[in-house]
Order: sequence, then C-alpha cells, then structure tokens
Amino acid sequence: MRKWGGREKVSEAPRLKTKNLYLVLVAPRNPLNIGAAARAMSNFGILRLRLVNPYAVAYREARSAVGAGEVLAGAEECATVAEAVGNAGLVVGTTAVGHRALEQPLRRLEYGARLIRRELETGPVALLFGSEKFGLSNEDLSHCDWLMRIPTRAEHESMNLGQAVAVCLYELIRDGRVRAKEPQRLRRAGAGELERMTELLLEALRRSGYVNPKTAASTGRKVRRMVRRLGVPGRDATAWQGMLRQIVWKLSASA
Amino acid sequence: MRKWGGREKVSEAPRLKTKNLYLVLVAPRNPLNIGAAARAMSNFGILRLRLVNPYAVAYREARSAVGAGEVLAGAEECATVAEAVGNAGLVVGTTAVGHRALEQPLRRLEYGARLIRRELETGPVALLFGSEKFGLSNEDLSHCDWLMRIPTRAEHESMNLGQAVAVCLYELIRDGRVRAKEPQRLRRAGAGELERMTELLLEALRRSGYVNPKTAASTGRKVRRMVRRLGVPGRDATAWQGMLRQIVWKLSASA
Repeated sequence: MRKWGGREKVSEAPRLKTKNLYLVLVAPRNPLNIGAAARAMSNFGILRLRLVNPYAVAYREARSAVGAGEVLAGAEECATVAEAVGNAGLVVGTTAVGHRALEQPLRRLEYGARLIRRELETGPVALLFGSEKFGLSNEDLSHCDWLMRIPTRAEHESMNLGQAVAVCLYELIRDGRVRAKEPQRLRRAGAGELERMTELLLEALRRSGYVNPKTAASTGRKVRRMVRRLGVPGRDATAWQGMLRQIVWKLSASA
Repeated sequence: MRKWGGREKVSEAPRLKTKNLYLVLVAPRNPLNIGAAARAMSNFGILRLRLVNPYAVAYREARSAVGAGEVLAGAEECATVAEAVGNAGLVVGTTAVGHRALEQPLRRLEYGARLIRRELETGPVALLFGSEKFGLSNEDLSHCDWLMRIPTRAEHESMNLGQAVAVCLYELIRDGRVRAKEPQRLRRAGAGELERMTELLLEALRRSGYVNPKTAASTGRKVRRMVRRLGVPGRDATAWQGMLRQIVWKLSASA
C-alpha cells in the first residue's frame, strides 16, 4: 500500500548555480519589504543580496528584524547601480511596465528565467528590483541587458516588492521536470471486499424494510453498482465492513 | 528593425477558469498578511476569497487598508472550514511540512498546480492556507483531498503567508507554453556599415600616429576584425559613423 506523506518521485532537480545570482534592491524604502525579500531569498536558497542606496532607517530596521538571518547579515551596501551589478555577465531589470515606453526587450518571467538559468551556468547574473513606489528609473534600466515582467493582469499589474521577489526566485528554482505523472494511486478496495460490503449493506437494507421483495434482484444490482462507484480505499474496507456488520447485528437484535 | 518594448509573441495563454477557484485563509492573524494575500490574488486575477475565523481586528484593519480593493470587499467570512470549502470538487491544503507526519499525499507545487488547473475546468476548487504561526491544523487537513508544498529549501521551509499565496497563484496562472524561442534579435549593422566604421576608425588611427606604415596592412585587418566583433546594433551604425567622422575631422583640422 502507498505510504502517505511521501513525496512523489521526480528526477533530480536541475542544480541552479545560486552562488552566481546577485539580487539587487535599488533604493528600497520599507524595512518590511527588505525583510520579506530576504526571507524569500532564504526560502529559495538565493543568498547574495546587494542594496543600492537603501533608506538608512529601513535598512537598519530590517537588519534588526527577527529572523532576518544570514541573507541580511551578509548583504552588501552599494552606492551605485554600476557598483552593484559589478562584473555580471547578464543584468536583468524587473518592471511592471505599463507606465513608460521601454528601450529594452521585455520578457515574460517564464521565458526570462530560462535565459537567466542558462547564464548562471557560466557566470554572475544581477537581478534588479526597483523601489516600491517608482520601480527602476530610466537611469537604472540603462544598466540592464533586458527586462522581465511577471505576468500579472493588466487591471492590476504592480506587485508588492517582497511578493515579486518571491515569485521571480520561485520561477528560477522551480523544476519543470516534475512530470504530470500521477503519484502511485491509493489502492482501492478489491472486488471481494466490495462484494462483502455490498452483502452487508443489502442485509441491513432488507432488515430495515428498504428492499421490496418483488424488486429485490434489481435493488441488489443497483446497490452493488453504487458501492462500486464509491471508490472505497483498500485500507478502509475492513472498517466499513465492521460498521455495517454492527448495524446488521443491531437490526437483527432489535427485530 | 525590431520594435523595443514589445512583448515576445506567445501562443494564447491557457484560459484558467479563475472563477472556480476559492482561496481560503484559515485563522489568519496579521492584517498585513491578509492584505498581501488579497493583493497577490488581484495581481493574478483570482478574486474569490474566504476567511475562516479570522482574528477580528486583523480582518477589519485589512479591509480598511488602502488598495485592498475588490478582493477584500467581496471576501466571505466563514465559521468553519467545512463551510468555506463548500461543494468544491477538490480541496487542496498547503503546508511547509517537516513538522508532522502527514496522512495525505503531498505534492510539489509544480505538479499539484497542474491537477488543480485540470479540476478547475469542470468545477470549484478550494485552496487552503493556514495561519501564519501554525499552518493548517490536523482538523483542517482532514478536509483536504491532498496537500501541496512550495519547493523551498530544507534549511528554511516556512514562507511568509502573502508570499506563499503569490507563488502558488503564479504557478497556477503561469504559461508553460512561453517557449524558449528567442524573440527576434536586434538587427546588427551590416557589412557595409561596419566597413565604413572600420575605414573611419583606421583614418582616425592613422592621423593619430597609431598605425606604423610598415605594418599598416596587418593593422587594418586587425582593426576590421575587432569592429566586427563589437556586434554593433544596426540602429547605432549611423551614430557611430558620425562620431568617428567628427574625430577624423578634428584630427585633420588640428594637423
């Protein structure tokens, strides 16, 4: 029988070269957002954070937040975007677009993440997120090779910073090879078990006066089909029989 | 020439039957998290929110939050999980696992989302998230057909509620058919344009005394190869020629 609680078997997840990925927050203003970004990074194993010109108070508060952990402890503060992207072979900016004409190619996250994963194989990549209020400026964007957007709906494009970071990192680490292979199904009760259940149920129905003797045969078939349609798990078959047996016993005792 | 700012062409995204999806927050405690969950829902077009036994103050504060919008305005409050899952044909609980033995199948988000999408085609699905502190209780879990986990790293499994909601909904709406098809590449400068640039550059180098007359031919070939390796975009070719022409003019004028 299937052991519950196990995870379905998947091929080994592709090893993402996480050490090559630098997450850059440009001018973040809210300590909760800095903390949320750091938490998502830790969840997904992306540990290199750089902050460009963060609002000093926000940064201090975020650093002192409970559970901020190693990501914030190891964060580097940079004066400029140029310094933060360093020698990255690929610099990608994130944007909710809609509000300005873009000078660079714009790629959906599903596809952009694939290009980033490929680049991470060979060298450093910087992924930039702008401030909560204004996003990345045109000056910031000029450092980017291309831009990436999360496929939000047009009516409400702009995401919360911490959530946007979580979604982008998830797409980077997700394993597309988790196949649509049904994990081993729950063993269903076999025909013999179902038949014993059917018999007990019919006995209970007879003793309850539910079965009209004239139509007993067709009622029997109807009940059998209904029991089969239940999809009784194998591990529950004995318990069901026990319950029905108890009911039959009670019905016969009180007759 | 490629028009920047355009989105790469993709096949029409699969229409997710979002109206069939109910997002259920069980006993949420923090108004910021309720608001964040509602925002992610709005971003991804999932608008049906049910709250089971929310902490009253948190719920009120979240509702009054700026930008909470239609999701929170339309949220339904339920007394029990049974009421919240209603007649959903599929009930899925989310968990960070690790902390207890599970009685139900546990599926990774990448795969679980596929099963949910399929079920949404035909009827309502309820997706449950537990409280920030304790997750879903064993009682809550007993209402679920199976459980789903976000593939976070073992060292830090537990995600922030708002971020977990964002990631799960993103996986549901993401379009796996955005193919690894390179969007139309930037048109590169043609051979003629590159040759004019090479000539202007060589002229500037000659006038600057860079070129040794004895090795002029090999220098010429070296420079031509270097210009070709630049990968000059077609739309920049004229500007480069203008700059070089100006330099040549200045060098000849001052000679």
